[in-house]
Amino acid sequence: MDRLKAGWFSELNDLWPGMCLSLQVDKVLHQEQSKYQDIMVLQTKNHGKALILDGIIQCTETDEFSYQEMISFLPLCSHPAPKKVLIVGGGDGGVAREVAKHPAVEEITQVEIDEGVLRVSREHLPFMGCGLEHPKLTLHVEDGFKFMAEHREQFDIIITDSSDPVGPAVSLFQKSYFSLMQQALRPGGIVCSQAGTVWASLDHVCQTFSHCHQVFPRTAYAITSVPTYPTGQIGFVLGSLNQETNFKEPLRIFSEEELDQMGLRYYSAEVHRAAFSLPRFAQQALSVR
Amino acid sequence: MDRLKAGWFSELNDLWPGMCLSLQVDKVLHQEQSKYQDIMVLQTKNHGKALILDGIIQCTETDEFSYQEMISFLPLCSHPAPKKVLIVGGGDGGVAREVAKHPAVEEITQVEIDEGVLRVSREHLPFMGCGLEHPKLTLHVEDGFKFMAEHREQFDIIITDSSDPVGPAVSLFQKSYFSLMQQALRPGGIVCSQAGTVWASLDHVCQTFSHCHQVFPRTAYAITSVPTYPTGQIGFVLGSLNQETNFKEPLRIFSEEELDQMGLRYYSAEVHRAAFSLPRFAQQALSVR
Repeated sequence: MDRLKAGWFSELNDLWPGMCLSLQVDKVLHQEQSKYQDIMVLQTKNHGKALILDGIIQCTETDEFSYQEMISFLPLCSHPAPKKVLIVGGGDGGVAREVAKHPAVEEITQVEIDEGVLRVSREHLPFMGCGLEHPKLTLHVEDGFKFMAEHREQFDIIITDSSDPVGPAVSLFQKSYFSLMQQALRPGGIVCSQAGTVWASLDHVCQTFSHCHQVFPRTAYAITSVPTYPTGQIGFVLGSLNQETNFKEPLRIFSEEELDQMGLRYYSAEVHRAAFSLPRFAQQALSVR
Repeated sequence: MDRLKAGWFSELNDLWPGMCLSLQVDKVLHQEQSKYQDIMVLQTKNHGKALILDGIIQCTETDEFSYQEMISFLPLCSHPAPKKVLIVGGGDGGVAREVAKHPAVEEITQVEIDEGVLRVSREHLPFMGCGLEHPKLTLHVEDGFKFMAEHREQFDIIITDSSDPVGPAVSLFQKSYFSLMQQALRPGGIVCSQAGTVWASLDHVCQTFSHCHQVFPRTAYAITSVPTYPTGQIGFVLGSLNQETNFKEPLRIFSEEELDQMGLRYYSAEVHRAAFSLPRFAQQALSVR
């Protein structure tokens, strides 16, 4: 963290060896060690406020919308009636903010293990923290595993908005986690999990995809662009209990006016379809699973 | 360039303010000041060899294929019979390597202004430099403006593989350049130019798109993912003299076997279509032009 002193935050991690993204920092707004992780909020020079967990950029104000919109609307628009939604993780509130926009959604349940992230986001990142205050949302500060084991067949959609598979989120990438999600879904339910990038960690993506594939009859991997994530993009693994689900063709297609009203800046039906068109090398690697 | 001493190369530029990508470096393989720019070749720790011009990463061995395949096959597969191709710039040879793979291409003419880039690529970057030796290729060390002014109505496709609009490539983003290209094309001809990223330089992308739009009856903007470029992606402006051209639907669709034979690792017909599906904010910005 030497560069922080020199006015830059640098993100180094073995998940993306030999490359490093740095953001110019005006001020450190907050730093604490919670029970689970190091939480830091930066005022950057050109990317607004940034949330950093254990030294890894989780979101910046200027580009978080692409991640939040895509992890939310890809599964929501692939389900014919996504009434009850569970969010695991997502403590910054960004996913709740987006999920609440979808007109079919009636109830949102969120389970975040780290009270610190909720508190810091509410205080320092109101553009995302606002999602935590939505009247449709019920928030639980608890372990997602435990919560799902106690809530069977209750949700139409489960979105796992986790940090990377180092630290507290490791267990959210295992097969046992996908099995728990399967049991917490109502018939025809759909899951969508953050699942790394094919450029820096293709093996890891394939492994997560394989775990999902062993549990769900329909699966897919989708990509979105997030400039302040390593390699500039991130992927999602999706699984459906409904054999008929065609993830590439959204069931709900919003008009431009509706997209405007919801304030969507990245997602559209066209972007939805394109997100599943993978580079050949990634398509081939995932096909053998 | 202090970090180079500490084992990292860092790319700082006003085109993407407040963010910086760094690559870990094992060795500086070459450095020279040519007549036009500073040319450097690095052996990186995890991204193979890298070509740097005036301090900006042009290509790394591990991800250059996505750029080279897309800037070549997007225009080639949008044309019914791309027999004669002109490449402006592209001194590393990567675009020539890809263009030569397309079975309809009969003659490739390349005009690169900097002899130094050609020499350095042949010596240090043979995985791209090999493209410069293809029997279909005729190479001219010359200014692209001058060359096109002297060669009217000769090409089916013109690909401009330039560096960013700082330094020697500035003129390749102006309206006068698009007009020259138009005059160098045969009827129904298509151009494809490197055109920056919508995340870091949306205004610049819109400006280049506007220049193209003023000259060509059909235009489009496409995106590809390149992890070692700023924001992790780059775009292309395409223009066609043929009113009927639908860039989103390739006219030539290769089978998986043909794609394998050509060694394509990124491009497919599906990826072609998806490349034109822009994030809403970019789609809206480009629509007003």
